Amino acid sequence: MKIEAYQIREGKKLNLKDHPTDGTKGVSKEEVKVRKPQLKLQLVKLQEQLYAEEQQSLLVVLQTRDAGGKDGTIKHVFTGLNPQGVNVTAFKEPTPLELSHDFLWRVHAHTPAAGMIGVFNRSYYEDVLVTRVHGEVDKQDIQRRYDEIRAFEISLQNRGTRILKFHLNISKDEQKRRFQDRLDKPRKQWKFSENDLSERALWDDYTKAYEDTLSATSTPTAPWYIIPADHKWFRNDLVTQILLETLNDMNPQFPEVDFDPTKIVIE
Amino acid sequence: MKIEAYQIREGKKLNLKDHPTDGTKGVSKEEVKVRKPQLKLQLVKLQEQLYAEEQQSLLVVLQTRDAGGKDGTIKHVFTGLNPQGVNVTAFKEPTPLELSHDFLWRVHAHTPAAGMIGVFNRSYYEDVLVTRVHGEVDKQDIQRRYDEIRAFEISLQNRGTRILKFHLNISKDEQKRRFQDRLDKPRKQWKFSENDLSERALWDDYTKAYEDTLSATSTPTAPWYIIPADHKWFRNDLVTQILLETLNDMNPQFPEVDFDPTKIVIE
Repeated sequence: MKIEAYQIREGKKLNLKDHPTDGTKGVSKEEVKVRKPQLKLQLVKLQEQLYAEEQQSLLVVLQTRDAGGKDGTIKHVFTGLNPQGVNVTAFKEPTPLELSHDFLWRVHAHTPAAGMIGVFNRSYYEDVLVTRVHGEVDKQDIQRRYDEIRAFEISLQNRGTRILKFHLNISKDEQKRRFQDRLDKPRKQWKFSENDLSERALWDDYTKAYEDTLSATSTPTAPWYIIPADHKWFRNDLVTQILLETLNDMNPQFPEVDFDPTKIVIE
Repeated sequence: MKIEAYQIREGKKLNLKDHPTDGTKGVSKEEVKVRKPQLKLQLVKLQEQLYAEEQQSLLVVLQTRDAGGKDGTIKHVFTGLNPQGVNVTAFKEPTPLELSHDFLWRVHAHTPAAGMIGVFNRSYYEDVLVTRVHGEVDKQDIQRRYDEIRAFEISLQNRGTRILKFHLNISKDEQKRRFQDRLDKPRKQWKFSENDLSERALWDDYTKAYEDTLSATSTPTAPWYIIPADHKWFRNDLVTQILLETLNDMNPQFPEVDFDPTKIVIE
Protein backbone atom coordinates (compact mmCIF):
# COMPACT_ATOMS: atom_id res chain seq x y z
CA MET A 1 0.00 0.00 0.00
CA LYS A 2 1.19 3.49 -0.80
CA ILE A 3 0.76 5.42 2.41
CA GLU A 4 2.22 8.50 0.72
CA ALA A 5 -1.11 8.86 -1.06
CA TYR A 6 -2.57 10.05 2.24
CA GLN A 7 0.24 12.46 3.09
CA ILE A 8 -0.16 16.22 2.80
CA ARG A 9 2.58 18.07 0.96
CA GLU A 10 4.08 20.99 2.88
CA GLY A 11 2.68 24.37 1.91
CA LYS A 12 0.38 22.94 -0.72
CA LYS A 13 -3.01 24.64 -0.82
CA LEU A 14 -5.41 22.12 0.65
CA ASN A 15 -9.10 21.57 0.02
CA LEU A 16 -10.58 19.00 2.34
CA LYS A 17 -13.37 18.39 -0.16
CA ASP A 18 -10.79 16.84 -2.50
CA HIS A 19 -10.26 14.19 0.17
CA PRO A 20 -13.08 11.66 0.31
CA THR A 21 -14.19 10.79 3.83
CA ASP A 22 -15.67 7.45 2.80
CA GLY A 23 -12.83 6.20 0.59
CA THR A 24 -11.81 2.59 0.99
CA LYS A 25 -9.37 2.38 -1.94
CA GLY A 26 -10.73 -0.90 -3.23
CA VAL A 27 -10.04 -2.63 0.08
CA SER A 28 -12.77 -4.87 1.45
CA LYS A 29 -13.89 -5.09 5.05
CA GLU A 30 -13.38 -8.83 4.85
CA GLU A 31 -9.72 -8.67 3.84
CA VAL A 32 -9.03 -6.08 6.54
CA LYS A 33 -10.57 -8.39 9.12
CA VAL A 34 -8.42 -11.26 7.91
CA ARG A 35 -5.13 -9.37 8.09
CA LYS A 36 -5.85 -7.56 11.36
CA PRO A 37 -4.39 -10.19 13.75
CA GLN A 38 -1.26 -10.45 11.61
CA LEU A 39 -0.73 -6.67 11.57
CA LYS A 40 -1.32 -6.50 15.33
CA LEU A 41 1.34 -9.16 15.90
CA GLN A 42 3.84 -7.18 13.86
CA LEU A 43 2.98 -4.04 15.81
CA VAL A 44 3.42 -5.85 19.14
CA LYS A 45 6.81 -7.16 18.04
CA LEU A 46 8.09 -3.79 16.84
CA GLN A 47 6.84 -2.04 19.98
CA GLU A 48 8.67 -4.57 22.15
CA GLN A 49 11.90 -3.87 20.26
CA LEU A 50 11.40 -0.11 20.44
CA TYR A 51 10.99 -0.42 24.21
CA ALA A 52 14.01 -2.67 24.64
CA GLU A 53 16.21 -0.51 22.40
CA GLU A 54 15.31 2.62 24.40
CA GLN A 55 16.83 4.99 21.85
CA GLN A 56 13.97 6.24 19.70
CA SER A 57 10.36 7.09 20.41
CA LEU A 58 7.19 7.56 18.40
CA LEU A 59 4.64 10.33 18.85
CA VAL A 60 1.20 9.80 17.32
CA VAL A 61 -0.98 12.90 17.13
CA LEU A 62 -4.71 12.38 16.56
CA GLN A 63 -6.86 15.30 15.53
CA THR A 64 -10.38 15.40 14.23
CA ARG A 65 -13.78 16.93 14.75
CA ASP A 66 -16.10 15.82 17.56
CA ALA A 67 -17.08 12.16 17.12
CA GLY A 68 -14.35 11.93 14.51
CA GLY A 69 -13.00 8.70 16.01
CA LYS A 70 -9.99 9.54 18.19
CA ASP A 71 -11.08 7.30 21.07
CA GLY A 72 -12.08 4.50 18.72
CA THR A 73 -8.81 4.65 16.81
CA ILE A 74 -6.82 4.46 20.03
CA LYS A 75 -8.92 1.58 21.31
CA HIS A 76 -8.70 -0.46 18.13
CA VAL A 77 -5.16 0.29 17.00
CA PHE A 78 -3.31 0.30 20.33
CA THR A 79 -5.20 -2.27 22.41
CA GLY A 80 -3.10 -5.42 22.45
CA LEU A 81 0.21 -3.59 22.76
CA ASN A 82 2.01 -3.84 26.08
CA PRO A 83 0.66 -0.84 28.03
CA GLN A 84 4.07 -0.40 29.66
CA GLY A 85 5.36 0.91 26.33
CA VAL A 86 2.37 3.00 25.28
CA ASN A 87 1.40 6.25 26.91
CA VAL A 88 -1.88 7.87 25.86
CA THR A 89 -2.61 11.46 26.86
CA ALA A 90 -6.05 12.94 26.32
CA PHE A 91 -5.87 16.74 26.33
CA LYS A 92 -8.98 18.50 27.53
CA GLU A 93 -9.81 22.17 27.87
CA PRO A 94 -6.71 23.86 29.33
CA THR A 95 -6.73 24.59 33.05
CA PRO A 96 -5.93 28.09 34.40
CA LEU A 97 -2.43 26.86 35.29
CA GLU A 98 -1.90 25.54 31.77
CA LEU A 99 -3.21 28.79 30.28
CA SER A 100 -0.68 30.71 32.35
CA HIS A 101 2.07 29.03 30.30
CA ASP A 102 2.89 28.96 26.59
CA PHE A 103 0.66 26.53 24.70
CA LEU A 104 3.39 23.90 24.28
CA TRP A 105 4.14 23.67 28.01
CA ARG A 106 1.44 21.20 28.94
CA VAL A 107 2.04 18.89 26.01
CA HIS A 108 5.81 18.87 26.35
CA ALA A 109 5.47 17.11 29.72
CA HIS A 110 3.80 14.18 27.93
CA THR A 111 6.00 13.62 24.89
CA PRO A 112 7.24 10.03 24.72
CA ALA A 113 10.53 9.11 26.38
CA ALA A 114 13.05 6.95 24.53
CA GLY A 115 11.53 3.53 23.97
CA MET A 116 7.93 4.71 24.24
CA ILE A 117 5.02 5.22 21.92
CA GLY A 118 3.15 8.37 22.96
CA VAL A 119 -0.37 8.96 21.69
CA PHE A 120 -1.96 12.40 21.86
CA ASN A 121 -5.75 12.39 21.85
CA ARG A 122 -6.10 16.01 20.78
CA SER A 123 -2.91 18.00 21.03
CA TYR A 124 -1.17 21.36 20.69
CA TYR A 125 -2.94 21.60 17.34
CA GLU A 126 -6.12 22.50 19.23
CA ASP A 127 -4.40 25.81 19.92
CA VAL A 128 -4.45 26.76 16.24
CA LEU A 129 -7.87 25.19 15.57
CA VAL A 130 -10.44 25.68 18.31
CA THR A 131 -8.90 28.95 19.47
CA ARG A 132 -8.99 30.29 15.92
CA VAL A 133 -12.59 29.24 15.23
CA HIS A 134 -13.65 30.91 18.47
CA GLY A 135 -11.74 34.09 17.65
CA GLU A 136 -9.42 33.85 20.66
CA VAL A 137 -6.33 34.34 18.52
CA ASP A 138 -5.72 36.45 15.43
CA LYS A 139 -3.96 35.64 12.17
CA GLN A 140 -0.58 36.76 13.45
CA ASP A 141 -0.87 34.59 16.55
CA ILE A 142 -1.69 31.64 14.35
CA GLN A 143 1.33 32.18 12.10
CA ARG A 144 3.58 32.53 15.12
CA ARG A 145 2.17 29.34 16.59
CA TYR A 146 2.77 27.46 13.33
CA ASP A 147 6.41 28.50 13.60
CA GLU A 148 6.55 27.43 17.23
CA ILE A 149 5.02 24.05 16.40
CA ARG A 150 7.53 23.44 13.62
CA ALA A 151 10.42 24.32 15.93
CA PHE A 152 8.97 22.17 18.72
CA GLU A 153 8.61 19.16 16.46
CA ILE A 154 12.18 19.58 15.24
CA SER A 155 13.37 19.50 18.87
CA LEU A 156 11.56 16.23 19.42
CA GLN A 157 12.95 14.79 16.22
CA ASN A 158 16.48 15.79 17.11
CA ARG A 159 16.16 13.64 20.23
CA GLY A 160 15.01 10.60 18.28
CA THR A 161 11.22 11.04 18.24
CA ARG A 162 9.33 10.18 15.05
CA ILE A 163 6.11 12.10 14.63
CA LEU A 164 2.98 10.87 12.88
CA LYS A 165 0.01 13.20 12.62
CA PHE A 166 -3.41 11.94 11.64
CA HIS A 167 -6.43 14.00 10.72
CA LEU A 168 -9.41 11.66 10.86
CA ASN A 169 -11.54 13.06 8.09
CA ILE A 170 -15.28 12.50 8.53
CA SER A 171 -18.26 13.93 6.69
CA LYS A 172 -20.90 16.13 8.24
CA ASP A 173 -23.47 13.39 7.68
CA GLU A 174 -21.31 10.81 9.43
CA GLN A 175 -20.87 13.12 12.41
CA LYS A 176 -24.66 13.41 12.61
CA ARG A 177 -25.06 9.62 12.53
CA ARG A 178 -22.50 9.23 15.31
CA PHE A 179 -24.08 11.90 17.51
CA GLN A 180 -27.46 10.23 17.03
CA ASP A 181 -25.96 6.87 17.89
CA ARG A 182 -24.58 8.32 21.14
CA LEU A 183 -27.98 9.74 22.00
CA ASP A 184 -29.74 6.47 21.23
CA LYS A 185 -27.48 4.14 23.21
CA PRO A 186 -27.51 4.49 27.02
CA ARG A 187 -23.91 3.21 27.24
CA LYS A 188 -22.77 5.96 24.89
CA GLN A 189 -24.80 8.95 26.12
CA TRP A 190 -22.01 10.13 28.42
CA LYS A 191 -19.89 10.81 25.33
CA PHE A 192 -22.38 13.39 24.06
CA SER A 193 -22.26 17.00 25.13
CA GLU A 194 -24.69 19.73 24.14
CA ASN A 195 -21.63 21.76 23.33
CA ASP A 196 -21.04 19.35 20.45
CA LEU A 197 -23.96 20.94 18.59
CA SER A 198 -22.67 24.50 18.80
CA GLU A 199 -19.29 23.26 17.53
CA ARG A 200 -21.05 21.41 14.71
CA ALA A 201 -22.64 24.69 13.67
CA LEU A 202 -19.09 25.97 13.05
CA TRP A 203 -18.33 23.09 10.64
CA ASP A 204 -17.14 25.29 7.78
CA ASP A 205 -14.93 27.41 10.00
CA TYR A 206 -13.26 24.25 11.28
CA THR A 207 -12.80 23.05 7.71
CA LYS A 208 -10.86 26.22 6.85
CA ALA A 209 -8.85 26.06 10.06
CA TYR A 210 -7.90 22.44 9.36
CA GLU A 211 -7.00 23.17 5.75
CA ASP A 212 -4.64 26.00 6.68
CA THR A 213 -3.14 24.14 9.61
CA LEU A 214 -2.48 20.84 7.87
CA SER A 215 -0.95 22.63 4.94
CA ALA A 216 1.29 24.84 7.08
CA THR A 217 2.55 22.12 9.43
CA SER A 218 2.90 19.04 7.26
CA THR A 219 6.66 18.78 6.92
CA PRO A 220 8.57 16.00 5.14
CA THR A 221 9.73 14.55 8.47
CA ALA A 222 6.51 15.16 10.42
CA PRO A 223 3.78 14.77 7.81
CA TRP A 224 0.06 14.98 8.27
CA TYR A 225 -1.99 12.09 6.98
CA ILE A 226 -5.61 12.67 6.04
CA ILE A 227 -7.41 9.46 6.91
CA PRO A 228 -10.78 8.72 5.28
CA ALA A 229 -12.62 8.05 8.53
CA ASP A 230 -16.30 7.49 7.81
CA HIS A 231 -15.63 3.73 7.79
CA LYS A 232 -14.08 2.80 11.11
CA TRP A 233 -12.64 -0.49 9.87
CA PHE A 234 -10.84 1.27 7.01
CA ARG A 235 -9.58 4.03 9.28
CA ASN A 236 -8.17 1.55 11.81
CA ASP A 237 -6.50 -0.51 9.12
CA LEU A 238 -4.92 2.49 7.43
CA VAL A 239 -3.61 3.99 10.67
CA THR A 240 -2.20 0.59 11.64
CA GLN A 241 -0.43 0.24 8.30
CA ILE A 242 1.10 3.70 8.53
CA LEU A 243 2.29 2.93 12.06
CA LEU A 244 3.80 -0.34 10.90
CA GLU A 245 5.56 1.19 7.95
CA THR A 246 6.97 3.92 10.19
CA LEU A 247 8.15 1.52 12.89
CA ASN A 248 9.71 -0.74 10.30
CA ASP A 249 11.56 2.26 8.94
CA MET A 250 12.74 3.18 12.46
CA ASN A 251 14.00 -0.40 12.68
CA PRO A 252 14.43 -0.71 16.46
CA GLN A 253 16.76 -3.48 17.66
CA PHE A 254 17.23 -5.38 20.88
CA PRO A 255 20.33 -3.81 22.43
CA GLU A 256 23.64 -5.61 22.46
CA VAL A 257 25.08 -6.19 25.90
CA ASP A 258 28.54 -5.10 27.00
CA PHE A 259 29.32 -8.32 28.88
CA ASP A 260 29.95 -11.92 27.84
CA PRO A 261 26.86 -13.89 28.95
CA THR A 262 28.77 -17.17 28.86
CA LYS A 263 31.26 -15.90 31.45
CA ILE A 264 28.68 -15.02 34.09
CA VAL A 265 28.13 -17.47 36.93
CA ILE A 266 25.08 -17.11 39.15
CA GLU A 267 25.79 -18.23 42.71
CA MET B 1 -11.63 -17.99 45.18
CA LYS B 2 -10.74 -16.50 48.53
CA ILE B 3 -8.35 -13.70 47.71
CA GLU B 4 -8.17 -12.80 51.40
CA ALA B 5 -5.95 -15.86 51.84
CA TYR B 6 -3.18 -13.89 50.12
CA GLN B 7 -3.67 -10.68 52.10
CA ILE B 8 -1.29 -9.64 54.82
CA ARG B 9 -2.84 -8.59 58.13
CA GLU B 10 -1.72 -5.19 59.40
CA GLY B 11 0.98 -5.32 62.03
CA LYS B 12 1.16 -9.11 62.04
CA LYS B 13 4.71 -10.45 62.30
CA LEU B 14 5.49 -11.80 58.87
CA ASN B 15 7.79 -14.65 57.82
CA LEU B 16 8.10 -14.88 54.07
CA LYS B 17 9.14 -18.53 54.45
CA ASP B 18 5.59 -19.30 55.60
CA HIS B 19 4.45 -18.15 52.14
CA PRO B 20 5.17 -20.73 49.44
CA THR B 21 6.54 -19.24 46.24
CA ASP B 22 5.43 -22.18 44.12
CA GLY B 23 1.90 -22.59 45.46
CA THR B 24 -0.86 -23.15 42.95
CA LYS B 25 -3.71 -23.89 45.38
CA GLY B 26 -4.93 -26.92 43.50
CA VAL B 27 -5.47 -24.86 40.37
CA SER B 28 -4.29 -26.38 37.09
CA LYS B 29 -2.50 -24.57 34.30
CA GLU B 30 -5.12 -25.91 31.92
CA GLU B 31 -8.11 -24.44 33.74
CA VAL B 32 -6.35 -21.08 34.05
CA LYS B 33 -5.75 -21.09 30.32
CA VAL B 34 -9.40 -21.85 29.68
CA ARG B 35 -10.75 -19.05 31.85
CA LYS B 36 -8.20 -16.41 30.84
CA PRO B 37 -10.14 -14.93 27.88
CA GLN B 38 -13.30 -14.73 29.96
CA LEU B 39 -11.53 -12.93 32.83
CA LYS B 40 -9.88 -10.55 30.37
CA LEU B 41 -13.26 -9.67 28.90
CA GLN B 42 -14.62 -8.86 32.34
CA LEU B 43 -11.57 -6.73 33.06
CA VAL B 44 -11.97 -4.83 29.77
CA LYS B 45 -15.63 -4.16 30.54
CA LEU B 46 -15.00 -2.92 34.07
CA GLN B 47 -12.12 -0.73 32.93
CA GLU B 48 -14.33 0.87 30.29
CA GLN B 49 -16.93 1.68 32.94
CA LEU B 50 -14.32 3.02 35.33
CA TYR B 51 -13.07 5.33 32.58
CA ALA B 52 -16.55 6.50 31.61
CA GLU B 53 -17.63 7.06 35.20
CA GLU B 54 -14.55 9.22 35.87
CA GLN B 55 -15.07 9.24 39.64
CA GLN B 56 -12.81 6.56 41.05
CA SER B 57 -9.36 5.29 40.15
CA LEU B 58 -7.27 2.22 40.84
CA LEU B 59 -3.58 2.17 41.76
CA VAL B 60 -1.75 -1.12 41.37
CA VAL B 61 1.66 -1.29 43.05
CA LEU B 62 4.01 -4.07 41.94
CA GLN B 63 7.04 -4.88 44.05
CA THR B 64 9.40 -7.82 43.93
CA ARG B 65 13.02 -8.80 43.69
CA ASP B 66 14.95 -8.61 40.43
CA ALA B 67 13.46 -10.97 37.84
CA GLY B 68 10.47 -11.32 40.13
CA GLY B 69 8.03 -10.77 37.28
CA LYS B 70 6.87 -7.15 37.37
CA ASP B 71 7.25 -6.63 33.60
CA GLY B 72 5.69 -10.00 32.84
CA THR B 73 2.72 -9.39 35.11
CA ILE B 74 2.04 -6.04 33.50
CA LYS B 75 2.35 -7.50 30.02
CA HIS B 76 0.06 -10.45 30.69
CA VAL B 77 -2.52 -8.88 32.96
CA PHE B 78 -2.93 -5.45 31.38
CA THR B 79 -2.39 -6.09 27.68
CA GLY B 80 -5.79 -6.12 26.04
CA LEU B 81 -7.15 -3.24 28.10
CA ASN B 82 -7.69 0.07 26.33
CA PRO B 83 -4.35 1.86 26.80
CA GLN B 84 -6.19 5.17 27.06
CA GLY B 85 -7.40 4.10 30.50
CA VAL B 86 -4.22 2.45 31.78
CA ASN B 87 -1.12 4.35 32.75
CA VAL B 88 2.00 2.35 33.61
CA THR B 89 4.94 4.06 35.29
CA ALA B 90 8.25 2.28 35.70
CA PHE B 91 10.31 3.90 38.42
CA LYS B 92 14.06 3.67 38.00
CA GLU B 93 16.92 4.89 40.13
CA PRO B 94 15.97 8.40 41.29
CA THR B 95 17.50 11.33 39.40
CA PRO B 96 19.33 14.13 41.25
CA LEU B 97 16.22 16.32 40.85
CA GLU B 98 14.01 13.61 42.33
CA LEU B 99 16.44 13.10 45.20
CA SER B 100 16.26 16.81 45.97
CA HIS B 101 12.58 16.28 46.90
CA ASP B 102 10.83 14.09 49.47
CA PHE B 103 10.55 10.49 48.30
CA LEU B 104 6.83 10.72 47.51
CA TRP B 105 7.22 13.70 45.18
CA ARG B 106 8.13 11.79 42.05
CA VAL B 107 5.45 9.14 42.48
CA HIS B 108 2.67 11.58 43.32
CA ALA B 109 2.91 13.06 39.83
CA HIS B 110 1.97 9.64 38.41
CA THR B 111 -0.93 8.55 40.62
CA PRO B 112 -4.01 7.70 38.54
CA ALA B 113 -6.55 10.44 37.79
CA ALA B 114 -10.26 9.72 38.18
CA GLY B 115 -11.26 7.07 35.67
CA MET B 116 -7.77 5.65 35.28
CA ILE B 117 -5.93 2.50 36.29
CA GLY B 118 -2.39 3.41 37.30
CA VAL B 119 0.25 0.72 37.50
CA PHE B 120 3.51 1.28 39.37
CA ASN B 121 6.38 -0.93 38.25
CA ARG B 122 8.41 -0.47 41.42
CA SER B 123 7.21 2.40 43.59
CA TYR B 124 7.74 4.52 46.67
CA TYR B 125 8.24 1.22 48.50
CA GLU B 126 11.73 1.07 46.99
CA ASP B 127 12.55 3.89 49.40
CA VAL B 128 12.05 1.61 52.39
CA LEU B 129 13.55 -1.47 50.75
CA VAL B 130 16.60 -0.83 48.57
CA THR B 131 17.66 2.22 50.60
CA ARG B 132 17.46 0.17 53.79
CA VAL B 133 19.37 -2.80 52.44
CA HIS B 134 22.11 -0.47 51.23
CA GLY B 135 22.26 1.34 54.57
CA GLU B 136 21.24 4.71 53.14
CA VAL B 137 18.54 5.19 55.76
CA ASP B 138 18.40 4.22 59.43
CA LYS B 139 15.64 2.61 61.47
CA GLN B 140 14.10 5.95 62.43
CA ASP B 141 13.98 7.08 58.81
CA ILE B 142 12.22 3.86 57.90
CA GLN B 143 9.58 4.24 60.60
CA ARG B 144 8.97 7.84 59.56
CA ARG B 145 8.62 6.77 55.95
CA TYR B 146 6.13 4.06 56.88
CA ASP B 147 4.03 6.79 58.52
CA GLU B 148 4.38 9.01 55.45
CA ILE B 149 3.33 6.16 53.17
CA ARG B 150 0.25 5.42 55.23
CA ALA B 151 -0.75 9.10 55.23
CA PHE B 152 -0.07 9.36 51.49
CA GLU B 153 -2.20 6.34 50.70
CA ILE B 154 -5.05 7.72 52.83
CA SER B 155 -4.91 10.95 50.78
CA LEU B 156 -5.26 8.97 47.59
CA GLN B 157 -8.11 6.93 49.02
CA ASN B 158 -9.95 10.03 50.19
CA ARG B 159 -10.02 11.20 46.56
CA GLY B 160 -11.47 7.92 45.35
CA THR B 161 -8.36 5.85 44.58
CA ARG B 162 -8.38 2.17 45.46
CA ILE B 163 -4.95 0.75 46.15
CA LEU B 164 -3.79 -2.80 45.50
CA LYS B 165 -0.26 -3.78 46.44
CA PHE B 166 1.32 -6.97 45.19
CA HIS B 167 4.53 -8.55 46.36
CA LEU B 168 5.48 -11.12 43.73
CA ASN B 169 7.09 -13.76 45.88
CA ILE B 170 9.75 -15.85 44.11
CA SER B 171 12.30 -18.31 45.43
CA LYS B 172 16.03 -17.85 45.22
CA ASP B 173 16.23 -20.86 42.89
CA GLU B 174 13.61 -19.41 40.59
CA GLN B 175 15.52 -16.12 40.42
CA LYS B 176 18.61 -18.05 39.40
CA ARG B 177 16.69 -19.88 36.65
CA ARG B 178 15.35 -16.58 35.32
CA PHE B 179 18.73 -14.86 35.34
CA GLN B 180 20.21 -17.84 33.50
CA ASP B 181 17.37 -17.71 31.00
CA ARG B 182 18.12 -14.04 30.34
CA LEU B 183 21.77 -14.83 29.80
CA ASP B 184 20.98 -17.72 27.46
CA LYS B 185 18.50 -15.93 25.19
CA PRO B 186 19.85 -13.14 22.98
CA ARG B 187 16.45 -11.41 22.96
CA LYS B 188 16.48 -11.28 26.76
CA GLN B 189 20.10 -10.38 27.49
CA TRP B 190 19.36 -6.66 27.66
CA LYS B 191 17.23 -7.33 30.75
CA PHE B 192 20.25 -8.65 32.68
CA SER B 193 22.57 -6.36 34.59
CA GLU B 194 25.71 -7.39 36.46
CA ASN B 195 24.32 -5.35 39.31
CA ASP B 196 21.61 -8.02 39.63
CA LEU B 197 24.21 -10.41 41.09
CA SER B 198 25.35 -8.07 43.86
CA GLU B 199 21.69 -7.50 44.77
CA ARG B 200 21.12 -11.26 44.77
CA ALA B 201 23.93 -11.61 47.32
CA LEU B 202 21.78 -9.47 49.63
CA TRP B 203 18.83 -11.90 49.36
CA ASP B 204 18.35 -12.34 53.13
CA ASP B 205 18.55 -8.62 53.83
CA TYR B 206 15.84 -8.02 51.28
CA THR B 207 13.74 -10.75 52.85
CA LYS B 208 13.86 -8.96 56.21
CA ALA B 209 13.17 -5.59 54.63
CA TYR B 210 10.14 -6.98 52.77
CA GLU B 211 8.81 -8.71 55.88
CA ASP B 212 8.92 -5.55 57.98
CA THR B 213 7.58 -3.34 55.20
CA LEU B 214 4.65 -5.52 54.17
CA SER B 215 3.66 -5.98 57.78
CA ALA B 216 3.87 -2.28 58.61
CA THR B 217 2.05 -0.98 55.54
CA SER B 218 -0.66 -3.54 54.87
CA THR B 219 -3.78 -1.70 56.00
CA PRO B 220 -7.36 -2.96 55.72
CA THR B 221 -8.09 -0.50 52.90
CA ALA B 222 -4.71 -0.76 51.15
CA PRO B 223 -3.64 -4.34 51.76
CA TRP B 224 -0.56 -6.12 50.52
CA TYR B 225 -1.05 -9.38 48.71
CA ILE B 226 1.76 -11.92 48.65
CA ILE B 227 1.53 -13.63 45.30
CA PRO B 228 3.17 -17.05 44.84
CA ALA B 229 5.13 -16.09 41.74
CA ASP B 230 7.40 -18.97 40.73
CA HIS B 231 4.70 -20.09 38.28
CA LYS B 232 3.98 -17.22 35.94
CA TRP B 233 0.61 -18.59 34.82
CA PHE B 234 -0.58 -18.86 38.43
CA ARG B 235 0.73 -15.40 39.31
CA ASN B 236 -1.03 -13.80 36.33
CA ASP B 237 -4.29 -15.57 37.09
CA LEU B 238 -4.26 -14.64 40.76
CA VAL B 239 -3.43 -10.97 40.12
CA THR B 240 -6.18 -10.82 37.50
CA GLN B 241 -8.71 -12.31 39.91
CA ILE B 242 -7.80 -9.88 42.66
CA LEU B 243 -8.11 -6.99 40.20
CA LEU B 244 -11.50 -8.24 39.07
CA GLU B 245 -12.82 -8.69 42.56
CA THR B 246 -11.64 -5.20 43.47
CA LEU B 247 -13.12 -3.56 40.38
CA ASN B 248 -16.39 -5.40 40.90
CA ASP B 249 -16.45 -4.08 44.42
CA MET B 250 -15.77 -0.53 43.18
CA ASN B 251 -18.74 -1.07 40.88
CA PRO B 252 -18.14 1.73 38.36
CA GLN B 253 -21.15 2.82 36.32
CA PHE B 254 -21.66 4.62 33.04
CA PRO B 255 -22.64 8.14 34.08
CA GLU B 256 -26.20 9.35 33.79
CA VAL B 257 -26.61 12.40 31.59
CA ASP B 258 -28.30 15.61 32.65
CA PHE B 259 -30.20 16.11 29.41
CA ASP B 260 -33.06 14.27 27.73
CA PRO B 261 -31.55 12.46 24.72
CA THR B 262 -34.93 12.17 23.01
CA LYS B 263 -35.34 15.96 22.98
CA ILE B 264 -32.10 16.70 21.13
CA VAL B 265 -32.26 17.40 17.43
CA ILE B 266 -29.09 17.35 15.36
CA GLU B 267 -29.24 19.83 12.49
